[in-house]
Amino acid sequence: MAELLTGKEVAAALNQRSKLILEELQANNITPKLAIVRVGEKENDLSYEKGILKRCDELGVLARQVVLPLEVKEEELLKAIEELNEDESVHGILLFRPLPKRMDEDRIVNAILPQKDVDGATDLSLAGVFSGKPMGFAPCTAQAAIEALDYYGYDLSGKNVAVVGRSMVVGKPLGMLLLGRHATVAMCHSRTQNLADITSQADIVVAAIGKPEILTASYFRKNQVVLDVGVSWSEKKGKLCGDVDFDEVSPLVKAITPVPRGIGAITTAVLMNHVVLSAKSTLK
Amino acid sequence: MAELLTGKEVAAALNQRSKLILEELQANNITPKLAIVRVGEKENDLSYEKGILKRCDELGVLARQVVLPLEVKEEELLKAIEELNEDESVHGILLFRPLPKRMDEDRIVNAILPQKDVDGATDLSLAGVFSGKPMGFAPCTAQAAIEALDYYGYDLSGKNVAVVGRSMVVGKPLGMLLLGRHATVAMCHSRTQNLADITSQADIVVAAIGKPEILTASYFRKNQVVLDVGVSWSEKKGKLCGDVDFDEVSPLVKAITPVPRGIGAITTAVLMNHVVLSAKSTLK
Repeated sequence: MAELLTGKEVAAALNQRSKLILEELQANNITPKLAIVRVGEKENDLSYEKGILKRCDELGVLARQVVLPLEVKEEELLKAIEELNEDESVHGILLFRPLPKRMDEDRIVNAILPQKDVDGATDLSLAGVFSGKPMGFAPCTAQAAIEALDYYGYDLSGKNVAVVGRSMVVGKPLGMLLLGRHATVAMCHSRTQNLADITSQADIVVAAIGKPEILTASYFRKNQVVLDVGVSWSEKKGKLCGDVDFDEVSPLVKAITPVPRGIGAITTAVLMNHVVLSAKSTLK
Repeated sequence: MAELLTGKEVAAALNQRSKLILEELQANNITPKLAIVRVGEKENDLSYEKGILKRCDELGVLARQVVLPLEVKEEELLKAIEELNEDESVHGILLFRPLPKRMDEDRIVNAILPQKDVDGATDLSLAGVFSGKPMGFAPCTAQAAIEALDYYGYDLSGKNVAVVGRSMVVGKPLGMLLLGRHATVAMCHSRTQNLADITSQADIVVAAIGKPEILTASYFRKNQVVLDVGVSWSEKKGKLCGDVDFDEVSPLVKAITPVPRGIGAITTAVLMNHVVLSAKSTLK
């Protein structure tokens, strides 16, 4: 049976690192603050927000909720973001997406200052992830996968990693982060031919597709490390599942993250860490 | 013997496409203009500039040389770039690099407006290459490799491509362009273990390392397409060579680009095409 790479311990260790920085900030009379910008009252947003507020509270990060009505004008939303950009007491800005369709989401997202873009949403954050230059932050889920590999002691240098999925929130940025750690990265996706050949040859397989349990045992071999970043609803099982068929694959491989309680359990700790790092970067 | 994928025909076909756009622009009384910004009189820069001026002249693209003394102040150089940004008659800005070491090259490069960044040097151009969003332009050499594959009729969708080298001017952006064409892309580099296993399994191998003839026959198998983007001086042979040992590899594979007269012969045509496309984007 594979080692279970649960997220809880990774998040706890990351929170520990954040706390050390928080102490340093406290000594300088700085309390990190995250602004959460929400348009409307979508259930998903509310539940994510609740989780974030809880973590902020536990860690000692201030939270400021900026809630705008669903019918808010685009210019009003932009103004709200600009005020948060200018507010020196705010170190991170998280904007819930997707925004209402009538809005130019790209324009609004890119109004966020890269140094406050703790969710890794702006073009300059993505340029930073791509080039390795210290600009903005990586998308939290992509960074969470790196944190898990680090915590469980997997050295990435020279390793063959297959990343399945090429979204801008996970697959592509994670590919670049892995490349930055000197892994050899195979970027795979829906058009990939002989996917099982590629995944089964990798040392580490990252699944970031978003389709329940489509990676069955035939995609894997023993001694592999499997990170399952996908979370989607399985009609068949009537529950949230990862991209990997856990029951089939876990007896086969060396180590695997569960879904839930795997990568997803690390994401908010990464967000907190980004807020704290952003605050730290204001120290001279 | 492999089919020889020479660059001349690719450049000619690309110039043809540029000419069609030039005619459309002419009908709208627009003549595309490229500004070439040079600091000092470095021999490399002068020789590249000469080639560009010749191509501009042949194609009917205007060129404006902005030459600043080696001891120019950073703020003066920035001012020159800002003037070119504001000048509506200028559609592309090419800044020769590296700049003198005392200068903040990153700051200066990123002063160039992305829509005039025909050399794909700014962070926003790179974000565009990374995300696929229409911002800025791809680095010319990376785009030249794509043009060669297109011209010689290689469909990339679902193909396995090994990219060896992860520089920000070729390897990484080319990997993203290939991914955008739905190739499965293995990003390899100096830390890659078992490189020959990966390259020999690919349908297409792109070498972008910059070390003369280090990819010998053992890295390849028959039926592969090889793009050799590297150009470096071989002490052994006393001439410019690619990354691929051409004499060993060309009898083995299906098709290969020579060095010189391969990808390098396409780069300036890409630059011209970018200038023309930039001018076209100003048409309403």
